Amino acid sequence: MPVNLLPPLPTALFAVPGVRLGTAMAGVRKPNQRDVLVMELAPGTQVAGVFTTNRFCAAPVQLCRRHLDLLGVAGGIRALIVNTGNANAGTGDDGLARALSVCRSLARHLAVEVQQVLPFSTGVIMESLPHERIEAGLPAAVSDLAPAHWAEAAEAIMTTDTVPKAVSRQVQLGGRTVTVTGISKGAGMIRPNMATMLGFIATDAAVAPGVLQALVKDAADLSFNRITIDGDTSTNDSFVLIATAQAGHAPIHGLNEGDGAVLREAVVAVAQTLAQAIVRDGEGATKFITVQVDGGRHEDECRQVAYAIAHSPLIKTAFFASDPNLGRILAAIGYAGLSDLEASQVDLWLDDVHVVTNGARNPSYLEEDGARVMRQSDITVGVRLNRGTARTTVWTCDLSTDYVKINADYRS
Amino acid sequence: MPVNLLPPLPTALFAVPGVRLGTAMAGVRKPNQRDVLVMELAPGTQVAGVFTTNRFCAAPVQLCRRHLDLLGVAGGIRALIVNTGNANAGTGDDGLARALSVCRSLARHLAVEVQQVLPFSTGVIMESLPHERIEAGLPAAVSDLAPAHWAEAAEAIMTTDTVPKAVSRQVQLGGRTVTVTGISKGAGMIRPNMATMLGFIATDAAVAPGVLQALVKDAADLSFNRITIDGDTSTNDSFVLIATAQAGHAPIHGLNEGDGAVLREAVVAVAQTLAQAIVRDGEGATKFITVQVDGGRHEDECRQVAYAIAHSPLIKTAFFASDPNLGRILAAIGYAGLSDLEASQVDLWLDDVHVVTNGARNPSYLEEDGARVMRQSDITVGVRLNRGTARTTVWTCDLSTDYVKINADYRS
Repeated sequence: MPVNLLPPLPTALFAVPGVRLGTAMAGVRKPNQRDVLVMELAPGTQVAGVFTTNRFCAAPVQLCRRHLDLLGVAGGIRALIVNTGNANAGTGDDGLARALSVCRSLARHLAVEVQQVLPFSTGVIMESLPHERIEAGLPAAVSDLAPAHWAEAAEAIMTTDTVPKAVSRQVQLGGRTVTVTGISKGAGMIRPNMATMLGFIATDAAVAPGVLQALVKDAADLSFNRITIDGDTSTNDSFVLIATAQAGHAPIHGLNEGDGAVLREAVVAVAQTLAQAIVRDGEGATKFITVQVDGGRHEDECRQVAYAIAHSPLIKTAFFASDPNLGRILAAIGYAGLSDLEASQVDLWLDDVHVVTNGARNPSYLEEDGARVMRQSDITVGVRLNRGTARTTVWTCDLSTDYVKINADYRS
Repeated sequence: MPVNLLPPLPTALFAVPGVRLGTAMAGVRKPNQRDVLVMELAPGTQVAGVFTTNRFCAAPVQLCRRHLDLLGVAGGIRALIVNTGNANAGTGDDGLARALSVCRSLARHLAVEVQQVLPFSTGVIMESLPHERIEAGLPAAVSDLAPAHWAEAAEAIMTTDTVPKAVSRQVQLGGRTVTVTGISKGAGMIRPNMATMLGFIATDAAVAPGVLQALVKDAADLSFNRITIDGDTSTNDSFVLIATAQAGHAPIHGLNEGDGAVLREAVVAVAQTLAQAIVRDGEGATKFITVQVDGGRHEDECRQVAYAIAHSPLIKTAFFASDPNLGRILAAIGYAGLSDLEASQVDLWLDDVHVVTNGARNPSYLEEDGARVMRQSDITVGVRLNRGTARTTVWTCDLSTDYVKINADYRS
């Protein structure tokens, strides 16, 4: 089902010095599957995150923000606890109390303070978190803690995902080998700012205070904030970047040049791979679509056009059908909200096939060329607005009958 | 398939003095189906319209605007020509020439000027209009012209519609019986401003210049601009109001009181019935959903919340599954863009079932009550924002596997 996406080879995932991972089967929603993940961080680790903009943000997101404000940059966060099966969103004060109870329980096991623990939840909204079950699973997860358990961690955070998502890179900084390893989950309720996704990237790089927050925002904007499956922004989206500072190089003070640029590129590459993996494993996805819009006056209008295309059910069903019904793309460009757009200036490509020129069907466009590209599993839609120099890229998937079936059956 | 929607009884459709209708099978896209409609209007008829905001608006829409600017209020429009099977959008100057050729041909048959004809097209985008076939069908349509042919007209404008849509009302104005009769089409690519819909309402009322334009805008805002099926705004949406002034009462100069208010109510009621019929016949629809949002600071924010709910694929698939997975509605309210919304103030109802209070699950809410409402074919989602007195209502349908199948197969 996933589009050109294979499970990560555990041997290709490098451990990150300063990070240990352990999982358990706590039976949060269903028995016999890993549904709890604990990540333990060495003292002195910095953590920065970006979270959903949804006003119904979940209880764990509220606690994450609070604990990170207190301790993130200062280097006091010592553990993450993730559960699937229940989102603990739309649960009010009771939800906050239950999330805090889980944090308190893990803090006791690890002999740290409750505010040194960050909680994450994903699953059904508006149901009470079965916190006793999660807490009962903690001893098993804690005794499982080991640096090499990244593949098991990727599996433990899956919900409707069909493939665990993880990737690793190594770069040289100041003569030292530095590792960047990340995992993510998410397959539906995915849209920028952010997706129903959880993303965790850890590195043993040493980063000066303040730089980590800039890096996590950069990486999110270039990866998780550029994907959409169904346009639904979740209550629980969280992307966290962890820096343990154990690699032994001089701390990084900026991201634009030298070692800072090398680290930035590695983190962005890992984040993009994880984000694209979410789309490739999108619920019911059979096609991976890259939407590139250029020639805009500013990036915002490029994003408007790109998301109008990426969210259109009519376009997404046409991709599912491999039907080059490309007028639907013109319609989406037309309603994207650029009120002064001159339709007659717009060009459209499907991969290298020039479909529309000057706002109308290219006289030399042949339907068989469009049909050939539409049959591929990886397709690029190129839109040129011809009114400026700004550009953007967004990744999405098609809309299939299986998407509907998966979401109609999700709770049963 | 359509949700609680029956075809109109031809006997329930009152003729409108001053309007004659004729149809033909021109083979625009497929043989043996009515695909061309001509409406002939008596001299002195006023016409006003509202059209798509899509920047790739179709050639016929451009011509309609031009001809209405010249002649609409002045009372010079004498005929409408509608074809299905081809939208004549994304077709550039050649599309304009083809639409004009059709108008010219009909003008010759009716012995009027080309600018006295309004053209309308609906169907596939970005393909050349087979104008010769339409023109070859005009003699049959013209010889078919008769005041009683409203039911045949409703059938002739269908595309993926499964049921023709028409409704009639009569009211008393100045002691005279005045008729309001309308037809519409549309089942996909439907969203406010406007839907891929065509709507034509005719009345024999006499309306002072200027008032008709206000009335058509009012009626659109309260009907066609409140429906959404898939969030795709078409290139061809058109809603036209025709007043032949043949009823013999004194002309109406305002809409807020007396006869003007009576006429307004009748036109709005006809427009709402036609708009709701489009949703009830939405592609693959199995449920008709009314989304009511109240307690907002202004109507715009109520609309934002209502459309976030009405466009969410996750919510729409939950309705399809009759699954009271109502946390998805909270998530949509949360990402609707009200950046200062206090989640803890929000209430949610499903019909009369109070699901959420103070932003969290109502302690007395029982899943079986939610499940009971979800099994109905007509459902009202009620959201109270509790921060003002504004309100709005939007109508939509669920998202089913059949929606995907219909749109994946549309051109085959």
